[in-house]
Amino acid sequence: MSELRKDPFTTRWSIIATERQKRPHDFRRAPHTRSGGNCPFCWGNEHLTPPEVLAYRESRAGRNTPGWSVRVFPNKFPALDPGLPRAEKTDGPLVSMAGSGYHEVLVETPEHHASIPTYSTEQLSLALQAMGERLQALKQTGSIAYVQVFKNEGAVAGASLEHPHFQIVGLPLVPAAIAEELEVARAYHQSTGGCLHCAVLEHERLRRARVVEESPGFVCHCPFASRFPYEMSIHPQRHSPDFLDTDRDELEELAGALIRAVGRLEGAFPEPDYNMVLHTAPFGEAHPYYHWHLEILPRLTVTAGFEWGTGLFINPTAPETASEELRAVTGPWAAVPGPDTPGSTRAIPEGRRNHSS
Amino acid sequence: MSELRKDPFTTRWSIIATERQKRPHDFRRAPHTRSGGNCPFCWGNEHLTPPEVLAYRESRAGRNTPGWSVRVFPNKFPALDPGLPRAEKTDGPLVSMAGSGYHEVLVETPEHHASIPTYSTEQLSLALQAMGERLQALKQTGSIAYVQVFKNEGAVAGASLEHPHFQIVGLPLVPAAIAEELEVARAYHQSTGGCLHCAVLEHERLRRARVVEESPGFVCHCPFASRFPYEMSIHPQRHSPDFLDTDRDELEELAGALIRAVGRLEGAFPEPDYNMVLHTAPFGEAHPYYHWHLEILPRLTVTAGFEWGTGLFINPTAPETASEELRAVTGPWAAVPGPDTPGSTRAIPEGRRNHSS
Repeated sequence: MSELRKDPFTTRWSIIATERQKRPHDFRRAPHTRSGGNCPFCWGNEHLTPPEVLAYRESRAGRNTPGWSVRVFPNKFPALDPGLPRAEKTDGPLVSMAGSGYHEVLVETPEHHASIPTYSTEQLSLALQAMGERLQALKQTGSIAYVQVFKNEGAVAGASLEHPHFQIVGLPLVPAAIAEELEVARAYHQSTGGCLHCAVLEHERLRRARVVEESPGFVCHCPFASRFPYEMSIHPQRHSPDFLDTDRDELEELAGALIRAVGRLEGAFPEPDYNMVLHTAPFGEAHPYYHWHLEILPRLTVTAGFEWGTGLFINPTAPETASEELRAVTGPWAAVPGPDTPGSTRAIPEGRRNHSS
Repeated sequence: MSELRKDPFTTRWSIIATERQKRPHDFRRAPHTRSGGNCPFCWGNEHLTPPEVLAYRESRAGRNTPGWSVRVFPNKFPALDPGLPRAEKTDGPLVSMAGSGYHEVLVETPEHHASIPTYSTEQLSLALQAMGERLQALKQTGSIAYVQVFKNEGAVAGASLEHPHFQIVGLPLVPAAIAEELEVARAYHQSTGGCLHCAVLEHERLRRARVVEESPGFVCHCPFASRFPYEMSIHPQRHSPDFLDTDRDELEELAGALIRAVGRLEGAFPEPDYNMVLHTAPFGEAHPYYHWHLEILPRLTVTAGFEWGTGLFINPTAPETASEELRAVTGPWAAVPGPDTPGSTRAIPEGRRNHSS
């Protein structure tokens, strides 16, 4: 029996249609190519990218030389350009502005053939720290309203280069998807005084059915109205609107949570194509009612006419099933404290759940 | 230089980033498989589908037998089920309802290897007529709020069976994408008394740069804030909120416009993967400010983390370039009267542009 589910964080519904899982050839699997060769993101090829804006090196080697562990530079084929003016143009009913903004690449490992589950926590922590540094730098330009950090893993998910990397796009406006999440969270806060995300996380911890893993600082769960099969969200347990408020210890714990989450996905689907997106508060005015999180969006199904036409998604895998399968994947993370036993839900301290705006 | 463009019909922006067209391997091309074999949508295999709900046959042969020219039946793996209750369920902050609705397949040709540009106008007219009949039938159930008609052509666009077909999904709610278009059109009507779509079409006819083709009843253009390269919209020239108000002559003209539009796309990209979606007024209360249209969404690029994270799309092909290339494709449609010469824009009669709500 299929079910229509409203995403609590937006105005979007999903159709959880488990009947459709019986279709032949449902999940798309494309083994990743492993070409290597003259990769512009590998050590020794720094001259093939625009000059770096940030890099972590232990050696005393100069900029744009090998030996870095994390490296950030402008995208060679940028979608946006910081040199353009920001004024809106109107032509009758049509509104536009120059594509002003930043488009950067964050290479989070020198290892061409690595994937997140093979990283050390230390390595991924460094990458998350670099992400924070770039977010802070873009905030300080004063010209950016929102930064979208994302990862495309595998060609099906839009990766045009196989060497693992994140992308960082600084936008002159708050995009529709974030504006909608903010508005829904703001309305909830206005009517209840609390944080919608904290309330949903508390509910998910009570219900247990969709929690993949809890650590002291983070919860990974398969969202109630998941758009994609095996979709996961990672939220900080403490109420926190802005990724930039995450300290070094938390970044290290987040790195571990991410390694385990993608490790579970790889355990269920070897070489999965997926996207990862960070949702955090826009720059400018405070958004105390928001709650930053990371979304992992596996690309096992094809987004088709129905989704483009309606904005609704048809997902053939119930998030409860996905969560159960992901929890069952064994790996080096087995030693990590799992979720509390059912029923022993932890109360969220008032200071985390409620706050003044 | 890239440009941010606001879609006049929604709250969405697109980034027209022509720099990115220079990336290697930009457009995805997957030759379509041509397996044939035991296709459930071919003549003689009617027993492989659920029993038909509508078919056009010249012969006196019985239902669910060969000889039909258009055939509609429930999807064997439905996303929704008409037998389910429609009540909303609430579980803490989570809202859902049973997946109540209709999911049908409309096979618009008995020819397994056909594609839209190979159809006769007569054949496609029949299919559009059948579409209208099913929309009318779903309207009369009284349980459906909106019907999404769409086509997935090619595996990259989500087609799981190669025999050409449309799908018809009757939903118990008005989906987000339609609700947003309605709200933007309603607000425009409230402030100007006119139809936003008519105003944009008039503007596009004046500007010329994005019009692919005009016939007396329809305009095909590449939308200002196209999400996808070579995206096209087909609008009726006369103000018309509801596809169901289209008469037989107009359906025939629409069939011709569609054959030419997809023909142009095939001329530019052999065997293109694309989605097609119909946007029309929901059932229930009147939506006099809306304007129905068809969207053709080529799937030459991959939707990736940036798009999922932000709701913004990065499109490497300016719609002006797409329109120019599509106009230049030669074919049997060369004899059809093209757009008026530049400057000779036709006034939209008051009765079409303005109306009371």
